[in-house]
Amino acid sequence: MLGLVQTSLGVSAEWLRDNCRCAECRDAVSGQKLFDLADSPAIAEIAESAAEVTVVFADGHRSVFDRAWLAAPAPLGHRDESSKDLWTRTDVVSASWLAYLDDDAERLRCLDSVLRNGFVLLRGVPTRPGAVLEVAETFGFVRETNYGRLFDVHVVDSPNNLAFTSKPITPHTDNPYRDPVPTLQLLHCLENAAAGGETTLVDGFAVAARLRAEDPEAFAVLTQTPVTFSFADATTFLSAFRPIIDVDPAGRIREVRINNRSMQPGREHGPEFYRAYRAFRALLTESQAAFRLEPGDCLLFDNTRILHARTGFETSGSRHLQGCYADIDALASSAAVLRRTPVAELAAMFTGPGAAAYLGEPVTQAQHMLLAGAAALHAQAPDHLVAAALLHDIGHLVADEQHHDTAGARFLARWFPPAVTEPVRLHVAAKRYLCATEPGYFESLSQASVRTLGFQGGPMSEVEAAEFAAGPYAEDAVTVRRWDEAAKDPEATVPGFSLFAPLLERLVRP
Amino acid sequence: MLGLVQTSLGVSAEWLRDNCRCAECRDAVSGQKLFDLADSPAIAEIAESAAEVTVVFADGHRSVFDRAWLAAPAPLGHRDESSKDLWTRTDVVSASWLAYLDDDAERLRCLDSVLRNGFVLLRGVPTRPGAVLEVAETFGFVRETNYGRLFDVHVVDSPNNLAFTSKPITPHTDNPYRDPVPTLQLLHCLENAAAGGETTLVDGFAVAARLRAEDPEAFAVLTQTPVTFSFADATTFLSAFRPIIDVDPAGRIREVRINNRSMQPGREHGPEFYRAYRAFRALLTESQAAFRLEPGDCLLFDNTRILHARTGFETSGSRHLQGCYADIDALASSAAVLRRTPVAELAAMFTGPGAAAYLGEPVTQAQHMLLAGAAALHAQAPDHLVAAALLHDIGHLVADEQHHDTAGARFLARWFPPAVTEPVRLHVAAKRYLCATEPGYFESLSQASVRTLGFQGGPMSEVEAAEFAAGPYAEDAVTVRRWDEAAKDPEATVPGFSLFAPLLERLVRP
Repeated sequence: MLGLVQTSLGVSAEWLRDNCRCAECRDAVSGQKLFDLADSPAIAEIAESAAEVTVVFADGHRSVFDRAWLAAPAPLGHRDESSKDLWTRTDVVSASWLAYLDDDAERLRCLDSVLRNGFVLLRGVPTRPGAVLEVAETFGFVRETNYGRLFDVHVVDSPNNLAFTSKPITPHTDNPYRDPVPTLQLLHCLENAAAGGETTLVDGFAVAARLRAEDPEAFAVLTQTPVTFSFADATTFLSAFRPIIDVDPAGRIREVRINNRSMQPGREHGPEFYRAYRAFRALLTESQAAFRLEPGDCLLFDNTRILHARTGFETSGSRHLQGCYADIDALASSAAVLRRTPVAELAAMFTGPGAAAYLGEPVTQAQHMLLAGAAALHAQAPDHLVAAALLHDIGHLVADEQHHDTAGARFLARWFPPAVTEPVRLHVAAKRYLCATEPGYFESLSQASVRTLGFQGGPMSEVEAAEFAAGPYAEDAVTVRRWDEAAKDPEATVPGFSLFAPLLERLVRP
Repeated sequence: MLGLVQTSLGVSAEWLRDNCRCAECRDAVSGQKLFDLADSPAIAEIAESAAEVTVVFADGHRSVFDRAWLAAPAPLGHRDESSKDLWTRTDVVSASWLAYLDDDAERLRCLDSVLRNGFVLLRGVPTRPGAVLEVAETFGFVRETNYGRLFDVHVVDSPNNLAFTSKPITPHTDNPYRDPVPTLQLLHCLENAAAGGETTLVDGFAVAARLRAEDPEAFAVLTQTPVTFSFADATTFLSAFRPIIDVDPAGRIREVRINNRSMQPGREHGPEFYRAYRAFRALLTESQAAFRLEPGDCLLFDNTRILHARTGFETSGSRHLQGCYADIDALASSAAVLRRTPVAELAAMFTGPGAAAYLGEPVTQAQHMLLAGAAALHAQAPDHLVAAALLHDIGHLVADEQHHDTAGARFLARWFPPAVTEPVRLHVAAKRYLCATEPGYFESLSQASVRTLGFQGGPMSEVEAAEFAAGPYAEDAVTVRRWDEAAKDPEATVPGFSLFAPLLERLVRP
């Protein structure tokens, strides 16, 4: 019997037991773990094949692991320096707002720029007050603060913050007196007729990394000395006690917090702290991207990494920005979803919304579709019909629409040719057709299918049926429909989605 | 000349220079710093008196420090264990929703319970859907996530999360796959007719501190090993890489992140990690507060510290909770504002909204009131009239109201007797009275004061004037009015608010 130490697979027995994906160990629906690893598991037996590794534990529990899954690198976080491209001088990565809205690849390029470079500049965002909130909502959620969901940056008569004056502002991160700090900031320029007021960005991670290389003592002081940052007005007293450079347990830089205006040096801070602080500040001037925000520009940047500054400006010309805060975890999530391949996205739909009950049927929607796909495979159908069978009800998973047939076909048309999407679009029509033309078909329907037939328009008229039958995909749609009706057996063995993945990959349009 | 080392005051020369409060160094309005400490400052001279310490730097800059301010302890953060009351068994701190809404002291007790004990239970919150958002908005801001601004916790047909099933849930923190994690959670019970479903809370900080004492090796492993937590569905892929116990640079516990369902152990995690994890988990069962949420109960807890769990329940009776997330920094701010003494609150108003321009006058509203107070002091007026003069326009700072006289008096009545509030309430009437009865008075008014006279009803009629003069506070109101009119000289030396603080303290009702 194998012991408690590392297994021959390069991972521990604990890790294997903890990662068992069987139905007993993971909720089939949410993928969340259903057990607590209470004792050290011992391994009784390991059997390896080309595709899988089967582990039998001493208590008899049997776990089967996919080899590809075992070999995949573990995902890392998106916040620390290891996933960033540090820069000293950099071009401004920009994109047009319309392209960002219309083109997933362009949107992903922008979000990735925020994740890797720390910022992106969107151009041509409508200069409508409040538009900055719409920008934030394309990738995440607005973080409301005492400044509101939205704040206006312009010269005001009664500023409670220097940002609202025309004075120059040195490089800083926003809201360091907040804990947790808002991890993203958006600044949208509505009007800029003032002379001056240029925006400068500094990569705080790059500067901190340089400090670590050139002056490790100063770096150590700034990572180990918490500092009080605070802000007060009539309705607010915010105070945070955090180091200027925050590192993770492995020493990786993960957050820079620097704001000369709101830093309240502790009385224990002596020459050593100030020497380190000055050394860091001195480097901040050497790593910059500078540009002038024009009306319609919306700057989006990582407020835990990128310092921003503004030169002074004349108050004679008006200058009006609107800003808001948001969080980078949701942005990273949006980027990860955009990065999913079509097949990965479909897989996520099968385990996510696909796990919903299939109205009135004894199987879930995902099980129903997997069974329809299995029936097509069993019939040795061509790839496009297997895909159509597998995906025929995908419309139920994309929207709360009445017409899941057309919604599904429209969704799939992003990736698949008509040979896949047309049978999907016609699979409800095929039912109405079969009810009208095939004796005994109506009687074979499940109760739920009979109920929905009503909403769907009932059996076709003779004219409708003739028209349907004349269409180029009628036969395929009818074939898919038969697998659909058969795929509701709660006793049937449901295959995994991965069985279909290679077939789908082959069908996806480049 | 004194050098770079600690001064005789127990703080460094850098610290003193960095904390100079003079008008050149701090923005008079926002209190934010206007300079960067570029070089090591040297001190030429220190002169001490009973109330103040004057420091002259080598470059000639002169800073004056209040002794009390120098002696005050530095504020600390509100997140780490040093500001918490750790518990093993605890009573449930609860309060009625109406008392929380009506009584500042009760509200402060509740917010302090979240800060110190990690949670509070509000009872009698209306069982109206969405009410949980109103609770969050009493102290801060809702943190919207992929679950929405608000999420429903009940048995649903297509759960994408175990929380939405009737299965038992072991102690955990929410959203560990988010970075930053939402620091507060609210759970509002709308309906609970199901058997079972008891809520259990565990003080994660207390358990982590116990682990540190009893098993320092395990504690070290859990603070130094980042773990991947992740969550995926069709539209989301969230992933964070953080240790289970996060400590600050001084080793103080500041965040516990534990969720067996969404933890994705890294393949590098061996027996050592699992031993530590199990040791921590084992202690979690020994520190609990347990109760059943009844309709109208709203539980508010620190999601970085308090683990929550739920026993399984029967799906036969319905159970419906609504939840939302928020952040503890805003809650701490609300508590700090409630903790302000009346005089501190007034002081904050003078430096915050009081810095607004005084419509059409060459001084700010705060300067105008300080000058009126100074005029009363100069006239050796009794305390209550000095206070009335100082505070006569406070109504401008509390609301955008037309009637700043009555608004101000109402606001001040929380703390001050009628001898202060009545002259404030009547100071506009006194102007209308003087215009009607004193030849030459109208001509002495500033242009802005003439303009507002129109909105205010113009000079009094004879009947009105007679009625006014018969009132008990008419004479005081007229006296205050004369200081008011005189207090608009932009060349006058404006005293600090602190000059009046002792006098105000004496007048505040216990």
